[in-house]
Order: sequence, then structure tokens, then C-alpha cells
Amino acid sequence: MKLSKLGEFGLIGRFRKEIRTDRSVIRGSGDDCAVLTFDRYNYQLFTCDMIVENVDFTRKDDPFLIGRKAVAVSLSDIASCCGVSKHCVISLGLPQNVDFRFVQQMFKGMLSVANSFKCNIVGGDISRCEKIVIDVSMLGLVEKKKLALRSGAKAKDIIFVSGKLGGSIRGKHLKFTPRLKEAQYLADNYRIGAMIDISDGLLQDLGHITDESRVGAVLFEKLIPVSKDAVNLQDALTGGEDFELLFTLPVHEAKKLIKTGKFKFWPVGEILEKKEGIIFVDKFNKVEKVRPCGFSHF
Amino acid sequence: MKLSKLGEFGLIGRFRKEIRTDRSVIRGSGDDCAVLTFDRYNYQLFTCDMIVENVDFTRKDDPFLIGRKAVAVSLSDIASCCGVSKHCVISLGLPQNVDFRFVQQMFKGMLSVANSFKCNIVGGDISRCEKIVIDVSMLGLVEKKKLALRSGAKAKDIIFVSGKLGGSIRGKHLKFTPRLKEAQYLADNYRIGAMIDISDGLLQDLGHITDESRVGAVLFEKLIPVSKDAVNLQDALTGGEDFELLFTLPVHEAKKLIKTGKFKFWPVGEILEKKEGIIFVDKFNKVEKVRPCGFSHF
Repeated sequence: MKLSKLGEFGLIGRFRKEIRTDRSVIRGSGDDCAVLTFDRYNYQLFTCDMIVENVDFTRKDDPFLIGRKAVAVSLSDIASCCGVSKHCVISLGLPQNVDFRFVQQMFKGMLSVANSFKCNIVGGDISRCEKIVIDVSMLGLVEKKKLALRSGAKAKDIIFVSGKLGGSIRGKHLKFTPRLKEAQYLADNYRIGAMIDISDGLLQDLGHITDESRVGAVLFEKLIPVSKDAVNLQDALTGGEDFELLFTLPVHEAKKLIKTGKFKFWPVGEILEKKEGIIFVDKFNKVEKVRPCGFSHF
Repeated sequence: MKLSKLGEFGLIGRFRKEIRTDRSVIRGSGDDCAVLTFDRYNYQLFTCDMIVENVDFTRKDDPFLIGRKAVAVSLSDIASCCGVSKHCVISLGLPQNVDFRFVQQMFKGMLSVANSFKCNIVGGDISRCEKIVIDVSMLGLVEKKKLALRSGAKAKDIIFVSGKLGGSIRGKHLKFTPRLKEAQYLADNYRIGAMIDISDGLLQDLGHITDESRVGAVLFEKLIPVSKDAVNLQDALTGGEDFELLFTLPVHEAKKLIKTGKFKFWPVGEILEKKEGIIFVDKFNKVEKVRPCGFSHF
């Protein structure tokens, strides 16, 4: 069987079933971060993200921004669990023909965004590789009572996103701001249902929330904030690499957020019972069932 | 400037200078693991290792052993700080043409060695990549009083290795046993000076100990345990991927180890003052100064 048939999530699903973990693992694979016991008040978050030349960036992109992206992707995972970033290690695969200045600029980009979010770079590994590969593994901390997962959405919750969606390929995928401050603000002031960051596209990542929370959902086209860089609505729904927060709040909390929010968040839909599946209501109020879909690696 | 001119360690050295870390980092990059504050009695260890197709393995190798190696390399880093392994996350870069069964066997190899050493696999990431790339990031714990670093060697310490060296390419590099039990035994019963695992070759890794400890060293050819798989002495000195422990003990502790050791360790030399450099005494008692050298990625 070829990987393209099984897909990234099919592959991960098969592996997850075979893994057993001990009691120090609160949440293993299947969320944005693993959640581990730490101390009386906090959990430790642990995540990794690999970016690859010609898939996630090209040699023509600004190397500073490539390095920045590699670290920011993991920061976004920490944000989506409402954590704060603490430490990271970086594995670099480098072709022999890469110039030292290119690598140095990548490193400056990594350091810059890590410093911005008080994340210590504490180690790394460098290997020879035909294409540039950067894998960042990050540790964070989250107060136990603040932890947000994909699995906490309840029917009638309102669904929000933290920014405009689509067209990320035109630049945002290299320059996005990981939403750590927004997530902390939400955790400090609201009771979050479920949260995830949009890396594979709104529909795909909403599908992760509905799967893990065992719920359905409805999205309203009229409400979706489409970036001016998006080619069309489809792009905003499935384009991927927006790295915005996608989260749910109970109705009364949602009303409060819309009225008084310090940051701008867009309500885009509502959580439904599981049997409803995922429903899309277009601007003419036509209702259709949709399947989670988005960026696929294979 | 091309990377080959600067080399892996030149590159790492340049980056290290620019990194600032906060007080929760006991030891950042520059050792086998980062050492982080954890609780009253323990430090947390954090390390990452990337292995790459056609550099560290080929598509003709047994996929179970490829997966096993990817995890075992990080376990070896935890061992060299005298820690116990706790959790790991795994980033996989996979070409589209890899068969599912190949990936599944790799995963079984990872799971098998992780389970053997009670290491939870708690997450991962899968990307498309032209060659197979596996990056494992691992967390461990070490009792504060047991922590071993590269920097603890003192003049007159005796230098030991935990197994025969060289010829790893003929099979051992895929099948080695990470020396966690041996390291725990040493930490429980002896006062270790410095420790490292031999990944780049005895001479190169001894060089890391002498650099970080600001000492010199002498090695005696007659004492070096050469594997039957080694092509020659040079191979045992610089071949790399032995994944044996290289460590130092004060003289009286060394005598005790040689007399009563539960595991077999080989004394191979002695730590000297820094000004002596690294000296090699061949089997005819000819003395020569040597430079640390071994496997280079660029």
C-alpha cells in the first residue's frame, strides 16, 4: 500500500493504536502537544514540527524567515494548548552546497522568534541531508486549569478563529505571529471548550476538533474572515498554514468575548451534536454536508 | 564560505555563542543533553538526534532496525548523562514512494526499543521529504547528584570505554544497545568525572571531553578494545557510531571498577594537564600528539 492511499492521518491513526504510555502522560499523540505531569500546578507540553525544503519553503525564500517559521510552527502548537514556551532543541539537515551565510541567517531567524517568546534554544543536531530539513521540538508549561485540548467542544459552543484565513502561501506562512498572547488572554478570561491551531486548513482542523470531541459543527460562509491574499473561499477553508487559533466557547462566554474582547476574534459557526456531521451554510443559505479536508502531505 | 570548510562543530560553535538562556537552563547546547530544572531531586534531560537516508542508513537496511536506531541514538545521549529515558516525540520525513509496510516496520522498531527502556512515545509529525529522515527528541530524568557531563574530567583520572570499538558500519550501528543500565550502575556506585557517548569516534569524542573539561589526555593502543569488525586501528579510533560510553574515574575509583565491575569496562588511557594535548602511545611505545578527528558530516 502506498502512503498516498492511507494519508498522513491514516498513518498516524494506525501508529497511535499500538502505543501504550504510563501514568505520567496525561495526553499522548493526537493533540497539538503531548501533555505530561510536571508539578502541582502545571503540566509540561511537548511538541515537534518538521519543515522541509520544497514542501514548506524554497531556497529562494529569505533564510531568516525560513528559520523563523521553523520555530514559530512549534510556538503555535504551544499556544493552541494555552501554554507558554520554555525550551527547544533544533535538528538541522543541511546539503553540503549550502552557503554558511544562508545557514547563519536561518539561525538568526530561529533565535529572533525564540527570544520574542522567551523560549531557550538548549540544543540541536546537524546532519548532512540532500534538502534542507528543520525539525524543532519544544517544551512549554501550562497551568492545569488553563489547558485547552481538541477534545473539549460541546454542542451549542460557538466556534471562533483568531484571524483572516487563506492565501498564506503569498507570505503569511513565513511571517505569521504565533498566537501565544491571544491564547493566554483567552485562558485568563474565558472557559475555552476546545482549541487547535489551523495548520492544515479550517475544515481539516475543525474535523480534528469534532473527531476528538465527538461532536458535529456548522460553519457559515458569511462569517468566515477571508484574507485578501486568498484566491477564493475554498482557499480560506482548506489552504492551510494560517496558524490562527480555532476554538470554541460556551454561548454566554462567546457573547462576552464578542462584546469586550481585547483581541479581535471572528465567530464562524457553532458546535452541533455528532450525528449532524460538519455542515456548511453558503452565502445563499444553501446547506451542505462537508468532509474535513485540507493540505495533505501524501 | 561552504559548510565543509567550517565543519559541523565549527557551525555549532558559532551558533552557541549567540544563544542566551535563562536560569532554568543548567546546561544548554554543548553536551549530550540539555540539562533543565525539574524538581528538588532531579534535572530534566532534553536531546534530539536526526538520522538521514543514505547517510545513517539505506533503503536496503531492515526497516525495523532503522526505526530502532533512530530511537536508540537518543537513548544513548540520555545514558551518557546518567539519566533514565521518559518521553519522546518523533518527526518523520517520508518520500511518497515508500511502502506502508516499510514505514510500519520502522515504527515497530521505534516502539520496541522505546518500550525496552520505558520511554513513552507521546507525539510526532509526518512530512513529505525526498529522502527518509527521522528525528527523535527525548526527555529523561537524572538525579542531581548523578548527573555526568563532558566537563567533569580531572588530570590523573582514568579513561574507560564500555565496549569494543570500530567497524560499526558492519552492523552494530543498527543494532547497538544503548548503555543506560551500565550508566546507572556507574552512577550508583562510582564518582564519574566526565562522560560522553562515542558517536563520532573515540578521538573526536575524547576531544569533546578534553575541550569541555580543559584537560589533555593520553591513549594507549595496547589497551584499546578493537572490535573484530574493525578494519584497522584507525577505524576503532575514528570510525564513529560505536555508541559506547566514554568516561573518566578518579584513580582509586578506577581501581575499584576494574576489580569488582558488574559490567565489563576497558581502561584506555589517562587524563593529563591541558598543556599536554592529546597523546597517543602506539604498541611500540612510540609517543605522538594527535588531533581529535572522526566522522564529519560536511
